[in-house]
Amino acid sequence: MIKLTNTLLRVRICIVIIPFLSVCAHAQTDPLPSWNDTAPKKAIIAFVEKVGKEGTSDFVPIDQRIATFDNDGTLWVEQPMYVQLAFVLDRVKQLAPEHPDWKTTQPFKGVLDGDMKAVVATGEKGLMQLMAATHAGMTVEQFQKLVTDWLATTQQPRFKRPYTQCVYQPMLELLAYLRANGFKTYIVSGGGIEFMRPWTERVYGIPPEQVVGSSIKTKFEMVNGEPALMRLPEINFVDDKEGKPVGINQYIGRRPIAAFGNSDGDEQMLEWTAAGNGPRLMLIVHHTDAEREYAYDRQSSFGKLDKALDEANAKGWTVVDMKNDWKVIFPPAQ
Amino acid sequence: MIKLTNTLLRVRICIVIIPFLSVCAHAQTDPLPSWNDTAPKKAIIAFVEKVGKEGTSDFVPIDQRIATFDNDGTLWVEQPMYVQLAFVLDRVKQLAPEHPDWKTTQPFKGVLDGDMKAVVATGEKGLMQLMAATHAGMTVEQFQKLVTDWLATTQQPRFKRPYTQCVYQPMLELLAYLRANGFKTYIVSGGGIEFMRPWTERVYGIPPEQVVGSSIKTKFEMVNGEPALMRLPEINFVDDKEGKPVGINQYIGRRPIAAFGNSDGDEQMLEWTAAGNGPRLMLIVHHTDAEREYAYDRQSSFGKLDKALDEANAKGWTVVDMKNDWKVIFPPAQ
Repeated sequence: MIKLTNTLLRVRICIVIIPFLSVCAHAQTDPLPSWNDTAPKKAIIAFVEKVGKEGTSDFVPIDQRIATFDNDGTLWVEQPMYVQLAFVLDRVKQLAPEHPDWKTTQPFKGVLDGDMKAVVATGEKGLMQLMAATHAGMTVEQFQKLVTDWLATTQQPRFKRPYTQCVYQPMLELLAYLRANGFKTYIVSGGGIEFMRPWTERVYGIPPEQVVGSSIKTKFEMVNGEPALMRLPEINFVDDKEGKPVGINQYIGRRPIAAFGNSDGDEQMLEWTAAGNGPRLMLIVHHTDAEREYAYDRQSSFGKLDKALDEANAKGWTVVDMKNDWKVIFPPAQ
Repeated sequence: MIKLTNTLLRVRICIVIIPFLSVCAHAQTDPLPSWNDTAPKKAIIAFVEKVGKEGTSDFVPIDQRIATFDNDGTLWVEQPMYVQLAFVLDRVKQLAPEHPDWKTTQPFKGVLDGDMKAVVATGEKGLMQLMAATHAGMTVEQFQKLVTDWLATTQQPRFKRPYTQCVYQPMLELLAYLRANGFKTYIVSGGGIEFMRPWTERVYGIPPEQVVGSSIKTKFEMVNGEPALMRLPEINFVDDKEGKPVGINQYIGRRPIAAFGNSDGDEQMLEWTAAGNGPRLMLIVHHTDAEREYAYDRQSSFGKLDKALDEANAKGWTVVDMKNDWKVIFPPAQ
């Protein structure tokens, strides 16, 4: 009788446990459910498993598992224009009533008339004027609040959802998968560092101190007896192209073992990553999906991918073909 | 019989467990064994316990528990001169045979003759020349190796031990105590960021990405087909005085809730920390112990503490009297 009960018990335990183990096994073998089982997913998983193998020459100690991600076009949408540029244009329109001269002065006139050619014609000087008018002359906290409020009330024009929901679901899974395997994930973006920090923790799980980006100078001063950090109309650092390895060294002080980008602005970051010792993963997201997102590369005004695509092909870096390699593009609507 | 055995067993368990619990209790109540039970230790413990109390208005979520530490004079010795200056002087002497003109040209002549007055007389221009000769014109990795090799072979002149062992044992305990309570500990130093990063993890448990400091510019370039970060003879950022809150914002992007310094160079960092909402801890190490270390403040060439001491007293910041508040200064000799 006891034997029979034991046997029955074992059978029941198996009935309970086997499906559970099966779920676990499934979870273990599919950390990237929004990725098709094509070459990029295989390359990612092979890399992560390799660096985690203790006792082998490929093993990488956890403190050295640094992964850097470009933002525009790699983690979120950068079409029909960089999100930060949309913010600049909106701010100019919002501030225009206080600046009657803007109606007749470029580059502001161009922004107000919707004449982007006129804006572009003002060149770097015009861009700096727009930057000064919309990004400087306030404290860091005031700017963060502007960004937060704008993102909460603005929709991406084509997808009709907040920009912070126009992020790539497969990349969110990749960030989580890397972190679950001991990686420290960083953003290294040409975009403004203070434009990203207010929301990257909530959206990507990346805290402010792991965001590297372009910046304007700030100045510590007393305002009404209280210390404040004022934003100045002066470039501090451009975190793009050759600036990306410089920014990585400046902020992180270690060379990444994995780097993710989508444009020529990321080429040097991937070269810098590739040139280190031990296992490496260099990945480029190629926007090939006009139907679900956008298709662009060598001729694009935003996120131009030309030289870096040639280098990726020549050196065997991983290239994601968005249309074929991703099951979905965005997270479910919230 | 069974009852008796049980009773005996209980007694024996108590004999084993009670001393163990007592050790545990002792460890719990003394996280800072090298600190005397004076006001600073009490202030530190009260602060840490306060921010950890969930459900109270003082509670601080773990991701916001940022603590910033000055380095020179706060974590390690800065007398008889800043360690980095000793490195510069040694490098000039080492490089002198390759530069015969240095024998007759200031500021190099002054360094070689041991005539510090002549060096100081060359002002900022002379300092930049010394910086360029000893800190630039090489890759980041080459500089790190120079620093590592120098620290491994050089002794602090008075204590006859490596500089990395002339660190303050009570501060090492404080760093560990804060980290054990969820704090992220940063260095925010006027010293060179690349002069600190090669050893801060080993000595303080602070990884390279949590070191903020002064820097020279670097440039990404190809050297023999390999990407390299070259150090340029040009100041990038001075992380001192007003620069400290700027550096904190630039690198960390959050305001600290606790800050630790020892000189006027830390005043603005402590002001910036104090001006935030919620519980705060601002602490200054006052070097009062000529016998065991050094005694200096308002008149010192290195680590001058004058205005910040007045402000600390006026605002009730915590001031450590090294002689009275610390049981030991340095860790046991290794």
